[in-house]
Amino acid sequence: MPPIQTIAFDADDTLWVNETIFTQTQEHFTDIIRPYVRAEELGSQLDQTQIRNLSLFGYGIKGFMLSMIETGLELSDYRLPGTHIQQLLELGKEMLQHPVQLLPHVEETIRQLEGEYPLMIITKGDLFDQESKIARSGLADYFSSIEIVSEKNQETYRRLLRKHSLSAEAFLMVGNSLKSDVLPVCQLGGHAVHIPFHTTWVHEQLTPCQLEGYGYQELENMSQLPAYLQQL
Amino acid sequence: MPPIQTIAFDADDTLWVNETIFTQTQEHFTDIIRPYVRAEELGSQLDQTQIRNLSLFGYGIKGFMLSMIETGLELSDYRLPGTHIQQLLELGKEMLQHPVQLLPHVEETIRQLEGEYPLMIITKGDLFDQESKIARSGLADYFSSIEIVSEKNQETYRRLLRKHSLSAEAFLMVGNSLKSDVLPVCQLGGHAVHIPFHTTWVHEQLTPCQLEGYGYQELENMSQLPAYLQQL
Repeated sequence: MPPIQTIAFDADDTLWVNETIFTQTQEHFTDIIRPYVRAEELGSQLDQTQIRNLSLFGYGIKGFMLSMIETGLELSDYRLPGTHIQQLLELGKEMLQHPVQLLPHVEETIRQLEGEYPLMIITKGDLFDQESKIARSGLADYFSSIEIVSEKNQETYRRLLRKHSLSAEAFLMVGNSLKSDVLPVCQLGGHAVHIPFHTTWVHEQLTPCQLEGYGYQELENMSQLPAYLQQL
Repeated sequence: MPPIQTIAFDADDTLWVNETIFTQTQEHFTDIIRPYVRAEELGSQLDQTQIRNLSLFGYGIKGFMLSMIETGLELSDYRLPGTHIQQLLELGKEMLQHPVQLLPHVEETIRQLEGEYPLMIITKGDLFDQESKIARSGLADYFSSIEIVSEKNQETYRRLLRKHSLSAEAFLMVGNSLKSDVLPVCQLGGHAVHIPFHTTWVHEQLTPCQLEGYGYQELENMSQLPAYLQQL
């Protein structure tokens, strides 16, 4: 096996906390709309709206804000008062300004690996919001290139490998999403390390059979990455 | 003067119609909120909200949708009914799906220049929406590289020139915005062609003194670009 020449990291829920902010906001959302919605409808409707709107909005907080408003209106039969819609806007603006909270061992590991490998970030989502988080993370200088993409599938990774003149066999992707970070990279013959985050958005979940036959390494947290690289 | 080696094009209102779609939507927005708003307040409030929100939302339609909702709520003292908020969401979704209408002479000019120069797109805005428009424009294959950025200032162009190993003296930017396409490129010592679109968003307008002393060429439409390049 050729040695790893480049390591790419996912950002949200790999370098820093993200899904938790969505989950907490979703709880506030439920509290705000609760008085106007039948109890049995207070469920997964927001997830469904988001997934329905993905092809129009893409990933990111602004699309999430619009889906919150749409869901609140639909579930309340359009009775949700303007003051409550304004509260949903404020919730979203708080998300956009939420402090970037690095995950455990991220900074020390990135700092350690930076001298040994070119490091990349490959993250999907809203360009403006991702750039803002990367800047606020304090980590930007450790990465030789940063790619913000609208989707992370085989075609995306194929394009990025070509663009950076990398061979899949010498490329390692580290991320929390089996669907976005592990499976497409393995399918191209690359290496992947899966570091699960404690919650995964329903849209990012895979059934076990979709991963069958692909070899990838699961690590508990980022501190285990250097040792894993050494024994490759 | 060294010959031009790379030509980059802005996209919105340079390759295809954009501002018109915002202007038309703004008229529909005014019609929707009119019954709930004092007449004297039906003015430039939406522009002001958008500019106030730029640092949080960046450019693009999703941010515009959120700013429409916020403005409608504020101007109506939060009395705008849910059904009307839903209409604003629908307006925005129509914008996101609006057919891409190429500007006159764009396709023939791009096709003609493609054999002679590497062509780039440098456009700012929402990653997902811009990618979707580039794909739908049918022009993607003419461009050797496409850069979607969150802001177009000197630092952006400096970074892109470095990334693509281009010298400013051999780089020409073509666009409709003096602020985003012309001024920062001229400041770096590059070349710029300004092709005005009939409307320019207030945030993109410059005062004449900001451009004083910089040489750039103004053309009426894209068909004049090849002749201009020949006489350089």
